[in-house]
Amino acid sequence: MIVAVYAGSFDPPTCGHEDIIRRAAAIFRELHVTVFTNPEKRTAFSVADRVDMLKHMVAGMQHVSVDSCQSLLVDYASAKNASIIVRGLRAVSDFDYEFTMALMNKKLAPHIETVFIMTNPEYLYLSSSKVKELASLGADIGGLVPPYVETRLKEMFGSRKS
Amino acid sequence: MIVAVYAGSFDPPTCGHEDIIRRAAAIFRELHVTVFTNPEKRTAFSVADRVDMLKHMVAGMQHVSVDSCQSLLVDYASAKNASIIVRGLRAVSDFDYEFTMALMNKKLAPHIETVFIMTNPEYLYLSSSKVKELASLGADIGGLVPPYVETRLKEMFGSRKS
Amino acid sequence: MIVAVYAGSFDPPTCGHEDIIRRAAAIFRELHVTVFTNPEKRTAFSVADRVDMLKHMVAGMQHVSVDSCQSLLVDYASAKNASIIVRGLRAVSDFDYEFTMALMNKKLAPHIETVFIMTNPEYLYLSSSKVKELASLGADIGGLVPPYVETRLKEMFGSRKS
Amino acid sequence: MIVAVYAGSFDPPTCGHEDIIRRAAAIFRELHVTVFTNPEKRTAFSVADRVDMLKHMVAGMQHVSVDSCQSLLVDYASAKNASIIVRGLRAVSDFDYEFTMALMNKKLAPHIETVFIMTNPEYLYLSSSKVKELASLGADIGGLVPPYVETRLKEMFGSRKS
Amino acid sequence: MIVAVYAGSFDPPTCGHEDIIRRAAAIFRELHVTVFTNPEKRTAFSVADRVDMLKHMVAGMQHVSVDSCQSLLVDYASAKNASIIVRGLRAVSDFDYEFTMALMNKKLAPHIETVFIMTNPEYLYLSSSKVKELASLGADIGGLVPPYVETRLKEMFGSRKS
Amino acid sequence: MIVAVYAGSFDPPTCGHEDIIRRAAAIFRELHVTVFTNPEKRTAFSVADRVDMLKHMVAGMQHVSVDSCQSLLVDYASAKNASIIVRGLRAVSDFDYEFTMALMNKKLAPHIETVFIMTNPEYLYLSSSKVKELASLGADIGGLVPPYVETRLKEMFGSRKS
Repeated sequence: MIVAVYAGSFDPPTCGHEDIIRRAAAIFRELHVTVFTNPEKRTAFSVADRVDMLKHMVAGMQHVSVDSCQSLLVDYASAKNASIIVRGLRAVSDFDYEFTMALMNKKLAPHIETVFIMTNPEYLYLSSSKVKELASLGADIGGLVPPYVETRLKEMFGSRKS
Repeated sequence: MIVAVYAGSFDPPTCGHEDIIRRAAAIFRELHVTVFTNPEKRTAFSVADRVDMLKHMVAGMQHVSVDSCQSLLVDYASAKNASIIVRGLRAVSDFDYEFTMALMNKKLAPHIETVFIMTNPEYLYLSSSKVKELASLGADIGGLVPPYVETRLKEMFGSRKS
Repeated sequence: MIVAVYAGSFDPPTCGHEDIIRRAAAIFRELHVTVFTNPEKRTAFSVADRVDMLKHMVAGMQHVSVDSCQSLLVDYASAKNASIIVRGLRAVSDFDYEFTMALMNKKLAPHIETVFIMTNPEYLYLSSSKVKELASLGADIGGLVPPYVETRLKEMFGSRKS
Repeated sequence: MIVAVYAGSFDPPTCGHEDIIRRAAAIFRELHVTVFTNPEKRTAFSVADRVDMLKHMVAGMQHVSVDSCQSLLVDYASAKNASIIVRGLRAVSDFDYEFTMALMNKKLAPHIETVFIMTNPEYLYLSSSKVKELASLGADIGGLVPPYVETRLKEMFGSRKS
Repeated sequence: MIVAVYAGSFDPPTCGHEDIIRRAAAIFRELHVTVFTNPEKRTAFSVADRVDMLKHMVAGMQHVSVDSCQSLLVDYASAKNASIIVRGLRAVSDFDYEFTMALMNKKLAPHIETVFIMTNPEYLYLSSSKVKELASLGADIGGLVPPYVETRLKEMFGSRKS
Repeated sequence: MIVAVYAGSFDPPTCGHEDIIRRAAAIFRELHVTVFTNPEKRTAFSVADRVDMLKHMVAGMQHVSVDSCQSLLVDYASAKNASIIVRGLRAVSDFDYEFTMALMNKKLAPHIETVFIMTNPEYLYLSSSKVKELASLGADIGGLVPPYVETRLKEMFGSRKS
């Protein structure tokens, strides 16, 4: 019955994101994963590329769709008839940011609930920016991102280790 | 489809707990609220009293039941066919505790997910121990606990303000 | 007797800033609110615009003045015969930053004291950057900033919701 | 004009407390230092002893008085015509506790403001319980507590090092 | 050349402690593991039992010794000609406590350095008190403590699961 | 026997860095201080300048060398036969960042250990960016950076105070 959204920059999506998506998909009947686009922020991958990588990631998962949005997240959620915003939590600094976001969204749309899922400890150290930094230095990023994303990162940064 | 449990000491239950229960009940099909009993800890109210106060609190809510448990929370959840443990988050110190609890429960029962709901900012300052301290000093605790709990606290600590 | 300063970027000033100003003005005999200008940082509003918005905000408050400064905050405070720097605190991440700032200012000017006031919980989620993001996405920002600031933000970002 | 209160357990008072008292006394016209008594908590020193040690500490400071209180802090403040509660901040764990206390007191008495002063970095590591632990192990506690308190601690724990 | 000490309550020692001991033993030429005894604190195991469990744990590790101490940790370190105190870090709440301890020890003995090793993420959730709670509830604690400690805990709490 | 590396941006090196270097050099037989270069980040000083300032700083310290690296830190450490990465800790926000870095490095190179040394409380407020901000505003930065770095900063920002 319950529809949820999971939004992020996903620049690129990591195994940590995949873990949250898989766990959220087991809780909610429908999960909309959306690339939140912010024209002010420079990203490594285009919106289309990020949507493409997410679509590869969720291929085979049921009731999970992928798109992008440029509006307020709560407006996007309302348009999808979603009553839940899903967020992953990794660390104290996340917590503070997430806390203020959740309060703000509650004020903007009181009927929408934010629920948090703790990141798998295996992925505690993992972020999109860390993955890009490692890829740019030629580190082995297998196990940090799905194979398809690994290929895309190697295309972007060259493949110095091979 | 999804069954969830919400466990705590509830010594006594506060409006903050009520808020989390109400919001969790809107997300999950069935919610089991349970007084987690720890023989090592001294409490102000007996287990029976705390179950009683919770039952008053959830009267009129659908799909919400109240009982108590003395076993591991993940064993209790399994017995209820619950796949979700609900927790409320208030502050950074909560976060640390909740984080280690969630990791531990994940290790003990990998199929059970912990989801967190942020406490309403109105109840950020609210805890059972604070409420007891205020009641013992004769402060007005209306709005911090439901009327029935307020009555029980006044019986316990006297009603010096009246 | 005690003179205090309250400095910030105020890009733009929010209801959270207004709350801190009002509360600080009740404690100190004289309060100097100053737009701290950092030539390295890009801002949405000019210094003159930010001073203008603050002047509208404090109109009617007694013993509160508004200007801007480009020097060290402790030098500005000394020039105003102020012995107090007022800061608002919202969250743990604020705390860390504020803590190091307070220590640094104490070293630079041992006779100047930093005092902190907790932000009203209603404004815990509120920051100038959040307000700009919301305004740029066409969200309703009434209640987050004073009406005059709301008008200025709508001029800046257009008024897509109207 | 402004009257402030500074409450604590002071079991015993340390140089960190003295530092906060001295700095608060420079800001407010009148400062009431009060031993907050909690019948539930076991303390090393009696209320009378703690008041006595504080009186030695503030001897020579102007506009600073010492007593004890058993009521709600906001009621004590009102009785003293104080509009300010002063608190010292040392660390993140303090912050969380202080934050919820400040919110609670704001709810109980909206006209009373809590202001925070950062502890001198020299005293960051200092707490009454740490001092007692060190004294019980015979460590040199000179510089951590005033000489009078040092004498009282040596009487309590013996003076194994001499 | 460098001698280090690693002190704790070890009530009982866990796989997290073992991990820190093993890693510290690889860095320092000599490592003294010591049960820090605090007569004020009630423990589940006697000092002799905790020393015994640690001796089983470090059997086969070279340059690692086990004993107990009742004095100040810095005095114990000096007596062992140790210039290093080793600590494990798990979480933010640890950090605050460890930070004040390190500062205090630095003041008491400026020539002794505290170095911190991050706990393996696998053991982030692990503490002696959590292990005791789990054992008392009959949970499977294999993998959380070494087999010898597991046996001792089962003797203490009974073996309800068998 | 043990070789360690200490990496950073050092833009510029401060007295806080010098403190960590001095303390790490007393623990490890060989310490390699390295300017970690990130082509994406704009810095105030060139890599050559930062290496030069560090060389002045460690002149007279034994077993300490200075260079720069553009590769993964764990690859640099391996090339130096180092088994230890040294990090300084100042505050909770550091902790979070350092924690994820340490976990990531552990995954990339399990045989390399990260050890943390707490910053001297005197330097808690000190960072390279703070020093640059102060220098740009003409503040006295003596005692925050070594004399040679102070001279270089004055050349860069002019010497408005003289």
